[in-house]
Amino acid sequence: MGKKQYKNWQAKLHEIIYEADTPAGKLFDVVLLIVILASIVLVMLESVKSIDKDYHDFLNISEWIITILFTIEYILRIITVKRPIKYITSFYGIIDLLSTLPKYLSLIFAGTHALVALRALRLLRVFRILKLARFLGASNHLASAIKASRAKISVFLFAVIIAATIFGTIMYLVEGEASGFSNIPKSIYWCIVTLTTVGFGDIAPVTPLGQFIATIIMILGYGIIAVPTGIVSAEYTRKANNEDSDKKKDSDLPPPVPPHPSDVHLNSQSCPSCLAHNHKDQADFCYKCGHSLHLKP
Amino acid sequence: MGKKQYKNWQAKLHEIIYEADTPAGKLFDVVLLIVILASIVLVMLESVKSIDKDYHDFLNISEWIITILFTIEYILRIITVKRPIKYITSFYGIIDLLSTLPKYLSLIFAGTHALVALRALRLLRVFRILKLARFLGASNHLASAIKASRAKISVFLFAVIIAATIFGTIMYLVEGEASGFSNIPKSIYWCIVTLTTVGFGDIAPVTPLGQFIATIIMILGYGIIAVPTGIVSAEYTRKANNEDSDKKKDSDLPPPVPPHPSDVHLNSQSCPSCLAHNHKDQADFCYKCGHSLHLKP
Amino acid sequence: MGKKQYKNWQAKLHEIIYEADTPAGKLFDVVLLIVILASIVLVMLESVKSIDKDYHDFLNISEWIITILFTIEYILRIITVKRPIKYITSFYGIIDLLSTLPKYLSLIFAGTHALVALRALRLLRVFRILKLARFLGASNHLASAIKASRAKISVFLFAVIIAATIFGTIMYLVEGEASGFSNIPKSIYWCIVTLTTVGFGDIAPVTPLGQFIATIIMILGYGIIAVPTGIVSAEYTRKANNEDSDKKKDSDLPPPVPPHPSDVHLNSQSCPSCLAHNHKDQADFCYKCGHSLHLKP
Amino acid sequence: MGKKQYKNWQAKLHEIIYEADTPAGKLFDVVLLIVILASIVLVMLESVKSIDKDYHDFLNISEWIITILFTIEYILRIITVKRPIKYITSFYGIIDLLSTLPKYLSLIFAGTHALVALRALRLLRVFRILKLARFLGASNHLASAIKASRAKISVFLFAVIIAATIFGTIMYLVEGEASGFSNIPKSIYWCIVTLTTVGFGDIAPVTPLGQFIATIIMILGYGIIAVPTGIVSAEYTRKANNEDSDKKKDSDLPPPVPPHPSDVHLNSQSCPSCLAHNHKDQADFCYKCGHSLHLKP
Repeated sequence: MGKKQYKNWQAKLHEIIYEADTPAGKLFDVVLLIVILASIVLVMLESVKSIDKDYHDFLNISEWIITILFTIEYILRIITVKRPIKYITSFYGIIDLLSTLPKYLSLIFAGTHALVALRALRLLRVFRILKLARFLGASNHLASAIKASRAKISVFLFAVIIAATIFGTIMYLVEGEASGFSNIPKSIYWCIVTLTTVGFGDIAPVTPLGQFIATIIMILGYGIIAVPTGIVSAEYTRKANNEDSDKKKDSDLPPPVPPHPSDVHLNSQSCPSCLAHNHKDQADFCYKCGHSLHLKP
Repeated sequence: MGKKQYKNWQAKLHEIIYEADTPAGKLFDVVLLIVILASIVLVMLESVKSIDKDYHDFLNISEWIITILFTIEYILRIITVKRPIKYITSFYGIIDLLSTLPKYLSLIFAGTHALVALRALRLLRVFRILKLARFLGASNHLASAIKASRAKISVFLFAVIIAATIFGTIMYLVEGEASGFSNIPKSIYWCIVTLTTVGFGDIAPVTPLGQFIATIIMILGYGIIAVPTGIVSAEYTRKANNEDSDKKKDSDLPPPVPPHPSDVHLNSQSCPSCLAHNHKDQADFCYKCGHSLHLKP
Repeated sequence: MGKKQYKNWQAKLHEIIYEADTPAGKLFDVVLLIVILASIVLVMLESVKSIDKDYHDFLNISEWIITILFTIEYILRIITVKRPIKYITSFYGIIDLLSTLPKYLSLIFAGTHALVALRALRLLRVFRILKLARFLGASNHLASAIKASRAKISVFLFAVIIAATIFGTIMYLVEGEASGFSNIPKSIYWCIVTLTTVGFGDIAPVTPLGQFIATIIMILGYGIIAVPTGIVSAEYTRKANNEDSDKKKDSDLPPPVPPHPSDVHLNSQSCPSCLAHNHKDQADFCYKCGHSLHLKP
Repeated sequence: MGKKQYKNWQAKLHEIIYEADTPAGKLFDVVLLIVILASIVLVMLESVKSIDKDYHDFLNISEWIITILFTIEYILRIITVKRPIKYITSFYGIIDLLSTLPKYLSLIFAGTHALVALRALRLLRVFRILKLARFLGASNHLASAIKASRAKISVFLFAVIIAATIFGTIMYLVEGEASGFSNIPKSIYWCIVTLTTVGFGDIAPVTPLGQFIATIIMILGYGIIAVPTGIVSAEYTRKANNEDSDKKKDSDLPPPVPPHPSDVHLNSQSCPSCLAHNHKDQADFCYKCGHSLHLKP
């Protein structure tokens, strides 16, 4: 499968870049985190007219430095991984590439504004460093509570959209252009603003009938807000209860010393071949592709 | 009871129009879904002045095509069902009729704006195609949770209306016309906007006393928001718990292999005689009226 | 104790006015309900300038008719009850009096605006007719859930006020008069508008620092909204659970046929002597003062 | 450890200032509470331009009186406590000091506005008098519910910030300066205003695309609001359930007459040596440092 023989320096670099077990690996992560956050701050500052005018050169140079750093990091990641194609086509691989491109592209398409959005995507890289996925895994009640109530939430969302469309059309007819309900899509937008209790007030009914209908929409929205909250909290309560009752059953037996979730050492290694995460500490081979996790010969 | 003898082509058409088990039936549903959504989009686009001006003829012709399609569908539905009166007077029968009327009526009452609202009702037809009723039936926790707490929700709504009326009158007296509280109904409208935490800001108190009372209303509204959420989530949690404890009881016995909800194949057939839904896959006769479900002789 | 001997017509009138068991009593309640709602609608319409101008005489006469009807009702209530002082000083006695006064007082203090507020209090009379107290009693989960969490809600409210005061002072210093934060009370008002997620937008921060602090306040408010909801729904869930587990315990025994709440016939009589409510159907004497509930000799 | 011998008058003053068991101690607390609230009201009134102009001298003199009272109290607290350093460096010691400083500092830095904020901190002193900490301790469900779900709330907050940053950047690009989305930080501020359903409306999308994206953000925010509420109420329900099931277990045994929380008399004394609170009524020595709680020889 085209795996090239790992050299010593590659193995070392892999450990630094992809893992956080060694001091060098940790340092790399911390530096990367700071650079990413700095680059996000740069994007923000650049968008503020007055700052951009006064510090344009500083911001421009900083952005170039960060872009070059990210480019080097991207190249190193490709070099040190066994299956570069797999990395390049992975979610984080694409994010990493998109993090470097905007500045280069700005040379070609001068002043293209939309490239800023690409730069904001760098924020997603933070997730990898903080290993948030694992953190979420520890408290995966939340995710599974949402997952378990997915079907109900879909029905609920569908109902909200139907209600917004019908009420939006009615409000368009009742209020008309004078009050800002100038067309049905805008009216539907207002309906969702109202149903979600956001209530910007950029558009608001002015006729008595319109205000009466708005009252009904608001009370409806008030009732509707109870539904997703009720679903999530009930689902979540159930999970918590099940866990509690499981614990109580065990309390009669001599405790079997089960590894506490926070004690299970899932190390931060990723397989050099397939990039799989969450290997156990004692693991010698990747649980997914069987490749050896020990890089040094 | 005046059932006319079914002909072969009627049976075939019935299967296509009313059911989704055959490829033709599925295709019919998908096409219908697209036409309905397209017609909703048309209604929206027509309401946007700038689009209506540029593409008036296109929109008009499209609307006529859709209206004619719906008319044909409506006639076919009447022809292929055994008890046409039952269909015509059913909820979906009326919606189907209302979906076709607006364009015809616009010939008579030229430029009648209100007909647009009727067209938006077409959206309700989507429910039939998506068989959402059944989907909701599977997750009928939600419906029964709301049903079980209906009485409490009524009391709650009544309390909200009383509070809004009394506070509305007070705010009208305190703030008066200058701040936009120009009459009591408007003041009550503002009160509900505030109690539901929507807060448009089209009307807002400006006197210190008015702002003080507004503060009390807001904190009250903040507390009140807890009530419907608490009711629904408690009711919902209880149902989930009961289900769990039922499951636990069963776990001591050898499992009786109960059909998992998602495994029970309720097919998409509807009885050609009484239009009842949710027949089991092995059913030969309607569970409701006893009529044979097999149309072909 | 000064009880005057009941005459036959007094007993009959008492039954009509205070009870809803006889057809005449029911009719009286329905008529009263309509008159009260009509009087509320009158108050609202009178406040609408354009309507008041066109229909001033009609509104004025209607209000006089309603006032006279209420006056007659008030006098009859005093005459037919055994202990008039007790009725006059009771909650509903005072509300009844306040329902009649505004129009008479308007003769003396011509154009006194504030009397309108008194008229809105008539709405409270609806509670008596609908016997909402009893209805609430049947679903008294809600009341006891709120009661049980009273202490926690107080702490919570106190925390909201402290937070609003401190953040209000900070925002006053940061934003200042230019943005509408013209003094600390107004700033605190804005803080509560924000913490409760109402967000009128009549005052909004414009400086970057002010907007940053506003962001913190909003996220805080977002978290705070979880607290009262959590409290009420937990308290409510607990009550529902306890009830369920009580039911389960009983399910092993032969069912003792307990009277279902909705089957217990608490009749609508009120004691002619002490006005106590909720007598049982078979009761012959008031459970509170021992006076005979049978008025006719 | 440098404890100086307590004199009789010191003991008496300690009892008055630090405790609330004696009539004098209670009176001291009530007076202090009134003075603190009065000082807060003063801060507010001073900020209202029109009031400050008319009553400047009165407000100034009142503030000086309160400042001097607080100074005397601060000095007395230092004198009557055994370990003054401990008091001075404690949380309340610092708050007490900060309560007296602003007026003195205003002599040096004339017109320094920011000192007002320091004065608002006096409000925190109310907590000590109301012994709110103990009150919270009794209902410490709330605190532990929040504590138990801290990790989940962090993840949740982090997700909100990420979402706000990415959507904020997109909205900046879509809407641009014309609609008020003049830079990314402002756009992020708008996003949080929207996600939290506050919705000031000072900035609102005007382009159709911007309004469409806003719709998505609002529905997202609507769903997100369910998460913290669900977490807190589930955690809180679990605690309430555990307590209930503990009670049920005990109900089989002869009841051990456990002291009901509200019956346990934790008196209001604080140790003269280490300032520890919540001594039992029968306690003769501090449970923390062993020092005698009886000050009089």
